[in-house]
Amino acid sequence: MAEMKNICILGSTGSIGKNSLEVIANFPNRFRVQYLSANTNTCALKEQIDRFHPKAVAVLDKLSAANLIHSLNGSIKIFSGEEGLRELVNQKDFDILINSLVGFAGLRPTIEAIKNGKTVALANKETLVVAGEIITALIEKHNAPLIPIDSEHSAILQCLMGENHDKINRLILTASGGPFLHLDKKNFKDVTVAKALKHPNWKMGNKITIDSATLMNKGLEVIEAHWLFKLPPEKIDVLIHPESIIHSMVEFVDGSVKAQMGVPDMKIPIQFALTHPERAVSNFDRIDFVKQHKLTFLKPDIKKFECLKLAYDALRIGGTAPAILNAANEIAVELFLGGKISFNRIPQLIRKALEKIPIKHSPSLDDIIDTDNATRIYIETLKKRNRKL
Amino acid sequence: MAEMKNICILGSTGSIGKNSLEVIANFPNRFRVQYLSANTNTCALKEQIDRFHPKAVAVLDKLSAANLIHSLNGSIKIFSGEEGLRELVNQKDFDILINSLVGFAGLRPTIEAIKNGKTVALANKETLVVAGEIITALIEKHNAPLIPIDSEHSAILQCLMGENHDKINRLILTASGGPFLHLDKKNFKDVTVAKALKHPNWKMGNKITIDSATLMNKGLEVIEAHWLFKLPPEKIDVLIHPESIIHSMVEFVDGSVKAQMGVPDMKIPIQFALTHPERAVSNFDRIDFVKQHKLTFLKPDIKKFECLKLAYDALRIGGTAPAILNAANEIAVELFLGGKISFNRIPQLIRKALEKIPIKHSPSLDDIIDTDNATRIYIETLKKRNRKL
Repeated sequence: MAEMKNICILGSTGSIGKNSLEVIANFPNRFRVQYLSANTNTCALKEQIDRFHPKAVAVLDKLSAANLIHSLNGSIKIFSGEEGLRELVNQKDFDILINSLVGFAGLRPTIEAIKNGKTVALANKETLVVAGEIITALIEKHNAPLIPIDSEHSAILQCLMGENHDKINRLILTASGGPFLHLDKKNFKDVTVAKALKHPNWKMGNKITIDSATLMNKGLEVIEAHWLFKLPPEKIDVLIHPESIIHSMVEFVDGSVKAQMGVPDMKIPIQFALTHPERAVSNFDRIDFVKQHKLTFLKPDIKKFECLKLAYDALRIGGTAPAILNAANEIAVELFLGGKISFNRIPQLIRKALEKIPIKHSPSLDDIIDTDNATRIYIETLKKRNRKL
Repeated sequence: MAEMKNICILGSTGSIGKNSLEVIANFPNRFRVQYLSANTNTCALKEQIDRFHPKAVAVLDKLSAANLIHSLNGSIKIFSGEEGLRELVNQKDFDILINSLVGFAGLRPTIEAIKNGKTVALANKETLVVAGEIITALIEKHNAPLIPIDSEHSAILQCLMGENHDKINRLILTASGGPFLHLDKKNFKDVTVAKALKHPNWKMGNKITIDSATLMNKGLEVIEAHWLFKLPPEKIDVLIHPESIIHSMVEFVDGSVKAQMGVPDMKIPIQFALTHPERAVSNFDRIDFVKQHKLTFLKPDIKKFECLKLAYDALRIGGTAPAILNAANEIAVELFLGGKISFNRIPQLIRKALEKIPIKHSPSLDDIIDTDNATRIYIETLKKRNRKL
């Protein structure tokens, strides 16, 4: 019988957060929901509070927090704003942090949790993208386990169980290719937000769905894989696999390849992150290989999906380059989602930012935060100066 | 630096034997060829002696042995006949036995090696098929590691590294489907030996190639997997995968599936058996997923390939039933290869043997040998009585 673990979920009303709660609900004797956090969706958060009875919650948006405080009438502790989120993460009485915040905002809570020696189940890929070096050093110092939730990195982690890391020849990160895999590049400028939000296989939040359409999501995962598995960029390959059944693979020095597969359901990697290194019985759908019938593979087209190339470039440059890549991408995606720029402008803005923002090597956390800010300002300015962007 | 291991290869002039020597040739500081054995092919054996300088060899066929003794003129010790093979296996100064004998003949040498505490790298699948219970008990008693060389079982072994065996939901053994996957069953009676010997993906010996065409090979592997991984027949599935890239898979209780892949080259599982649980660098071909482009899957048709069903039946019946299945199959394949019976008669003969030969439960080694003999005599008699077979 495994010991009861207390869980804190940041971003509990998002896609990963909801799936995490579904997983936890299947293990009432193994996991307890101790803390939850949301941005503005207090409606969904209230339902989660009623169902899972956390000890406290945090609401990032202060107005939303005030509304929730009023409606719950003191029945539960509610933290509010960024400082509230920080206070929540620094509570002593939980074991595992599920960090499913979106974007750069996920960095600080990861750091706090690592410093407190918590196990971090990480869905926020930006944490490792922008501050991989710092996070890696902190993990070693505080001996805090960091388990990826991303299906690709979970797949690699599973393929590496019982294996010697020195015997890895290369990682093969699979990518669905997104909704525009077969669209001609010259039509990228006419891609609508609605079309870009239609992912062929996965139901996810808006930001990551756009990142999947540009293949930046895979680029961020390449950088994340670099830090998680300590491999150089030339040992991390990307392979288009439109069915999203093989979640990633590892090729070893003897020519043997191991792949981890599953139906496209985030509950499988979430559960694995929570039970790691063990597995637990689940009622999730199984792959029916006969019904699935075939798995296909294509080479990624980096001329068409320039974001993937830019991510490799940023990783090779190192220092604050990935932080620039990430900040420029966050703003560009926001602009696209807001109907302010066309789809094909996303990589252009990122490329410009990588060319213009000065890069610092071996950056401190402050350097990363400064770079993040500078990049965001630069992209906004670029946008204001050039309405045709 | 790994310690030098001395190797004894039984069946060194066969397909697995030759591939094993190719693997060993890549590791002159890690493996030394100490003993070799062949049946009649002294020409190939002589070349191997010249290249690898074993301490001694055994030749099963006494006339061939006499010829070799004459031509080598005392430069090397040559054992002869069955008793000679036995003497070779019982030499003390080797570490790993590669048993690539074909058929029932592989059983006794495996038993001797286990009793002597040797590591057994097993390509002779009949060993576990006919005497799984006895072998399993001996392995436990003598604490002798038995590593499968079959690509399917090697794949499963690799997928299970670092995993808890209690968390296996099912094994998925893949099968190419052989040359007659898409042939109508009514044409099975007209299948020629030449066509049956043309395997789409693997270059192997005649017996195993015919077994692949009838799917008996997969049936034998199901029984072998039962003993190797201690799982009931309902947890061992067979999936047709014509490309032979995925060598087998394991589905775990959480819904996650792990697959091991590689180009169809026996040198990969042979090397893994020799270096297990480590991996070593190889120059074998790598899978090019872009060139490979797709992997497909089909449900096996057990009405068409009755041998597969008969193997499951024999496994479920237990006792000496798998020994009857195996002996009847060996003789039926021999008769087919000799042009004495048509392809579609193979399962019919096996089914008759399973119906007629008395089955003993918890058999002794003598019971198994007696059953093997009785089955061979029964099939031969059946053949003589009915020329139309």
